[in-house]
Amino acid sequence: MATAESILSFDLVHDKIRSCREVPATVGLYGNFRGGERLRNAISRMMERTFMGVEVDPSHICISSGVTAVLDLFFFATCNPGDGCLIPAPYFPAFDNDMSIRNEVIPIPVQPTDTRTYIPTVHEMEEAVLAAESKGIRARMLLVTNPGNPLGTLYPEATLKELLLWAVKRGLHVLSDEIYANSKFGPSVDEFVSMEKVTKNAVMEGLLSAETAAELVHTAYGMSKDFGMNGFRVGCLHTKNKDLLEFWQNMGMFAAVSNDTQHALAIMLEDENFVDKYVKENNRRLKKSYELLTKSFEAANLRYMPACAAMFCWLDLKSLLTEPTFTAEDNLWKEILDECRIVLTPGQACHYAEPGFFRVCYASMAPASLEIACARLTGFAEKKRRKRKSRDGQLDIDTLRTNH
Amino acid sequence: MATAESILSFDLVHDKIRSCREVPATVGLYGNFRGGERLRNAISRMMERTFMGVEVDPSHICISSGVTAVLDLFFFATCNPGDGCLIPAPYFPAFDNDMSIRNEVIPIPVQPTDTRTYIPTVHEMEEAVLAAESKGIRARMLLVTNPGNPLGTLYPEATLKELLLWAVKRGLHVLSDEIYANSKFGPSVDEFVSMEKVTKNAVMEGLLSAETAAELVHTAYGMSKDFGMNGFRVGCLHTKNKDLLEFWQNMGMFAAVSNDTQHALAIMLEDENFVDKYVKENNRRLKKSYELLTKSFEAANLRYMPACAAMFCWLDLKSLLTEPTFTAEDNLWKEILDECRIVLTPGQACHYAEPGFFRVCYASMAPASLEIACARLTGFAEKKRRKRKSRDGQLDIDTLRTNH
Repeated sequence: MATAESILSFDLVHDKIRSCREVPATVGLYGNFRGGERLRNAISRMMERTFMGVEVDPSHICISSGVTAVLDLFFFATCNPGDGCLIPAPYFPAFDNDMSIRNEVIPIPVQPTDTRTYIPTVHEMEEAVLAAESKGIRARMLLVTNPGNPLGTLYPEATLKELLLWAVKRGLHVLSDEIYANSKFGPSVDEFVSMEKVTKNAVMEGLLSAETAAELVHTAYGMSKDFGMNGFRVGCLHTKNKDLLEFWQNMGMFAAVSNDTQHALAIMLEDENFVDKYVKENNRRLKKSYELLTKSFEAANLRYMPACAAMFCWLDLKSLLTEPTFTAEDNLWKEILDECRIVLTPGQACHYAEPGFFRVCYASMAPASLEIACARLTGFAEKKRRKRKSRDGQLDIDTLRTNH
Repeated sequence: MATAESILSFDLVHDKIRSCREVPATVGLYGNFRGGERLRNAISRMMERTFMGVEVDPSHICISSGVTAVLDLFFFATCNPGDGCLIPAPYFPAFDNDMSIRNEVIPIPVQPTDTRTYIPTVHEMEEAVLAAESKGIRARMLLVTNPGNPLGTLYPEATLKELLLWAVKRGLHVLSDEIYANSKFGPSVDEFVSMEKVTKNAVMEGLLSAETAAELVHTAYGMSKDFGMNGFRVGCLHTKNKDLLEFWQNMGMFAAVSNDTQHALAIMLEDENFVDKYVKENNRRLKKSYELLTKSFEAANLRYMPACAAMFCWLDLKSLLTEPTFTAEDNLWKEILDECRIVLTPGQACHYAEPGFFRVCYASMAPASLEIACARLTGFAEKKRRKRKSRDGQLDIDTLRTNH
């Protein structure tokens, strides 16, 4: 349950993609290294219709082999080695590799003061920039993930606006990772607002110039999560930054997507009826699994952060730690692996400062398997509590004996 | 005629790939970032059967999105910024970008002393290493392309052996780019020997230890050229180097190939009957186009280097230069573009030291178009010669007048 992978609805995509195979003979030729026109058109239209809430110009889209490749190229283009990237914690562990392995960009986790909502504030960001500067790290980028990973929650529009205006004023690039934007199933679904929409509004209100916005605001999206297509390796960047678009025209050659896959995907996405039905059905299935998981947590008195999007649940197992340390968190992680045969993502890997939290992905297995996993996990927690109680009881008796 | 792209036989691949679409539902899931097992099996079997001449173990194969991506990752893994890579000139212009843009590896063109065969010698290599060292560049790699690009010729086995033993003794990595290994149509076809075969023989003769060979000898291959599948972005590295194989297991994520494309290709390559027929027919077509081109050159008294492989012809237009400089070469290139609407690859781009040569790719158009292109090119050359003759005549008269 540690892989950000959904198998819940791939049956629908698999059936559909089989019927999307009439690709032209030009598929064998070199294409545009920023992505073929047809897929850029189809993906733009899908993004604007389903979540972005603004017109999407296909000439602002760069397609590469997965968002991993997109981020790698993006950080290469926008940052220098040693630059810093602010990321509200807890965050997706793989970001570290994506920005640092080849580009030596330094992730700067920013801890939330409000540990009920985890919503970051400009004040925390500003503090983080200064702290980084004192270590000689120049912050160059703010990376937000909305819907959130690992939290599965949405940023309020006001927060996005505040972060955007602060970052732009600071001269920072803003990258909004919206790869879960079509996975929303909770009551607050309508609260999702894309960073492009927030930006457009800010420009209209005169709070930001269109030129600055075009230079600094970027969005990442991909087919891996909402469409369960990790294996197809298709990610994209939406940007109006002319230098970046030109860069991709050449550099895209290092991580291009097969024209064959591009055509099949384009044909699939051009069927708007399919897309709408798919998104609706996928969210119904996500919701079902999420509810199965959280009901089982509630029955076992396990605390978790309520989610409404993505495919994660942020589980609070602090009460099972032997002490409030990451060593204890790590031990608990190992116990869960050994006793339940379940792999969770520890909070420390998500750069969260308080030990005892775990990310649970509930979409990487069918509901029947999820039920078994939940039973094991809650059974483990209950056993652990009983043991502790009896040990604590034992301790109390020992204490009594010592004292008397 | 400047793009290394063959359209000659894609009709066969296009028909075939349509029937290779029964991919399993696991295609949506994350795969092995070094390439899926099925495609690694199929590609290994194809390589060993059709050109490598040694057993190929699928666990020695790394698959990424085109040889461009393969080289980018390979140089990142094996070299440090500022290291040098020896390449016998003339060579494929894009190597420069592949090694330098992201990895800052410095290409070191090594000019051939023998300008009849262009066959490099160990002496030239040694001189190049010393010259590089005097500039503070440490040679770390020898990159050979066999069959050759831009020459379309094959290295003799003795040359490969000599280069291999010299490089390994020097502690250099050896990368053999054999991406045209299934495009051979000339009388000397049987002379092709893969670097792996040469290495195996050298190990058997006790000239090289198996461990050193495993660490230092690598081969690049891809589907782009022999199968006309540039647009599918599938390249691979064959290596026995354990560190490199482990590296790819993780780093392959930055340039992975769609599982969907991988499965279709695997199904295609598993059909050995198709592969054999295809390779034979493709070589028949390459030969036909090559002969069309060279007959037209001969009829127009244009000099060229006889080729027997790949999809290029190395054309000697020295006689059309106004002077033996790269400025004159560049002017001639522009004239050919303006007057013939034909783009050639100038020798300077291939890092060849003597001005006046051009790489002609004859497979990027159908034979009917090639005939038109040849007519334009030879017509241009003849006009140019006539002009020069009459101008030279004029000059003679002027000279006479001045002298008398």
